[in-house]
Amino acid sequence: MNYIGIDIGGMSIKGGIVSSAGEILKKEVVTTNPWADDDVIVGDIASLIKSLIGDGAESVKGIGLGIPGTVDGKKGRVSVTPNINLTGTCLVKKLHAYFPDVPIKISNDANCAALGEALFGSEKLDDAVLVTLGTGVGTGIILDGKLFEGNGGAGAEGGHMVIKTGGEKCGCGRRGCWEAYASASALIRQTRMAAEKNPDSILAKIVKEDGEVNGKTVFKAQSEGCPVAQKVIKKYLVYVGDGIVNLVNIFRPKAVIVGGGISKEGERIIKPLQAYVNRKAYAPKFSPKVKVMPATLFNDAGIIGAAALVMDI
Amino acid sequence: MNYIGIDIGGMSIKGGIVSSAGEILKKEVVTTNPWADDDVIVGDIASLIKSLIGDGAESVKGIGLGIPGTVDGKKGRVSVTPNINLTGTCLVKKLHAYFPDVPIKISNDANCAALGEALFGSEKLDDAVLVTLGTGVGTGIILDGKLFEGNGGAGAEGGHMVIKTGGEKCGCGRRGCWEAYASASALIRQTRMAAEKNPDSILAKIVKEDGEVNGKTVFKAQSEGCPVAQKVIKKYLVYVGDGIVNLVNIFRPKAVIVGGGISKEGERIIKPLQAYVNRKAYAPKFSPKVKVMPATLFNDAGIIGAAALVMDI
Repeated sequence: MNYIGIDIGGMSIKGGIVSSAGEILKKEVVTTNPWADDDVIVGDIASLIKSLIGDGAESVKGIGLGIPGTVDGKKGRVSVTPNINLTGTCLVKKLHAYFPDVPIKISNDANCAALGEALFGSEKLDDAVLVTLGTGVGTGIILDGKLFEGNGGAGAEGGHMVIKTGGEKCGCGRRGCWEAYASASALIRQTRMAAEKNPDSILAKIVKEDGEVNGKTVFKAQSEGCPVAQKVIKKYLVYVGDGIVNLVNIFRPKAVIVGGGISKEGERIIKPLQAYVNRKAYAPKFSPKVKVMPATLFNDAGIIGAAALVMDI
Repeated sequence: MNYIGIDIGGMSIKGGIVSSAGEILKKEVVTTNPWADDDVIVGDIASLIKSLIGDGAESVKGIGLGIPGTVDGKKGRVSVTPNINLTGTCLVKKLHAYFPDVPIKISNDANCAALGEALFGSEKLDDAVLVTLGTGVGTGIILDGKLFEGNGGAGAEGGHMVIKTGGEKCGCGRRGCWEAYASASALIRQTRMAAEKNPDSILAKIVKEDGEVNGKTVFKAQSEGCPVAQKVIKKYLVYVGDGIVNLVNIFRPKAVIVGGGISKEGERIIKPLQAYVNRKAYAPKFSPKVKVMPATLFNDAGIIGAAALVMDI
């Protein structure tokens, strides 16, 4: 049984045929026309799907789509997409005009990625939280094998949970959001500040040599034995860990999957985060342990997770 | 159709016959023997239930119990109760020896209260978060008309969500938990500190006259026009509001119900909290509004909610 998964981005629309085992059997990508009329964008998506299906229309059991924005999955409507002209579009209805007999579902792209990682990552998990440490901090919540999205698809915004009341300004308008401390962007800011404050450090030397700061800079300096970098990472992991423990205390999932660019550092961040969760989660003696693990599907998670939206309907 | 709801506390065990409309038809209370053998405690609970049922055994469709501790509802086992000797007790199994043919379910007492308030409070809600501002901060999560408890019943501990990383020490061992800022105990501490710092304030005068500080003191001073008290309350409501907005962003429930002693202040806390949620919740323009409302069942919520555990099985 095969499914179509579509991962819509501001730059490109990626689509794949996905097996019920979560394997991508065929993959195609088209460029997004983000500010075209929404009917044009929907037409582009439909063409991509048709191209993927080819002559095998009867073997595709459903189409799932991940959208970069707030999505009302129940109504099949995009509530808001800041970077593509689909705000207010009844996407499911419009796509049904092209594919009248196929079940179609939509969700937020980060939620789709979470579903993909939970169901088809290194371990099959029916209860998990995916934390994506990227430009922002995204959270996807899987409960009983299903996405939890909140009313109108407006929940699961764990990146906008305050971990420092009155703290750093966040893009959402609040102060002290987790995203403002634990995103890759926040780590870059923390790295830059530490390098400026410690001009003689190995970190500052690397920043000067590279001519830029990115999410890897501080880890590179740590590898070269820089104590300033070590301190930045330690503090950053407390920020990341505090948010993760908050989610553990609220959801007590079987696992927290850490994705996004920063997660590519692997064990050097997963191991201390696991130790932090073991130590700090509520009532550790009497509560089920929660595993912290790295994401494994990365860029494919969006397509696989979008397809998973329609796997059990 | 009637149900038995039992609210177990360290001081007393309260029981009631509850109708399917959530009305308490009969109520009885016995004193808890908190450190007796667990079989003795279970026997006391069974006697209370028998006394409630009287001759009408056949009309009782289920028994629900709320326990002050961590409860694994799926296994019917109490994981830990700090103030009563039921840690590790397979309560459902032991009670089935007395009532072999009746469905029996157990949950955490705060969770039961949340279920009671959501299903039988001023408005029937199938998606809601109950926040209890008492000695600690309790949170109960209702999703699709059911309690959400997390694996092993160890979730829904929103009071132990850090809102100020590195902040005040919390009883759970972490620093900066919501409970350490938003509980009645925290408000009392904040009140006491403000009175000490401002010995000429109306607040300090009231503290001196009353000879003690409780959760009402600062509101009493506010009523008398004390600017120091006004400042304490404003700051306290930011702490309470930050945690509520976090839960709104994560769950996007239909409503947040505020209970516990502090909630008896009514509109003077509900109104500013509603305004805070409207202003601070994520993407307010594009997301469903979340109502902030006071709890209405108070002490009866535990009995009614415990009975509600067995209403749909």
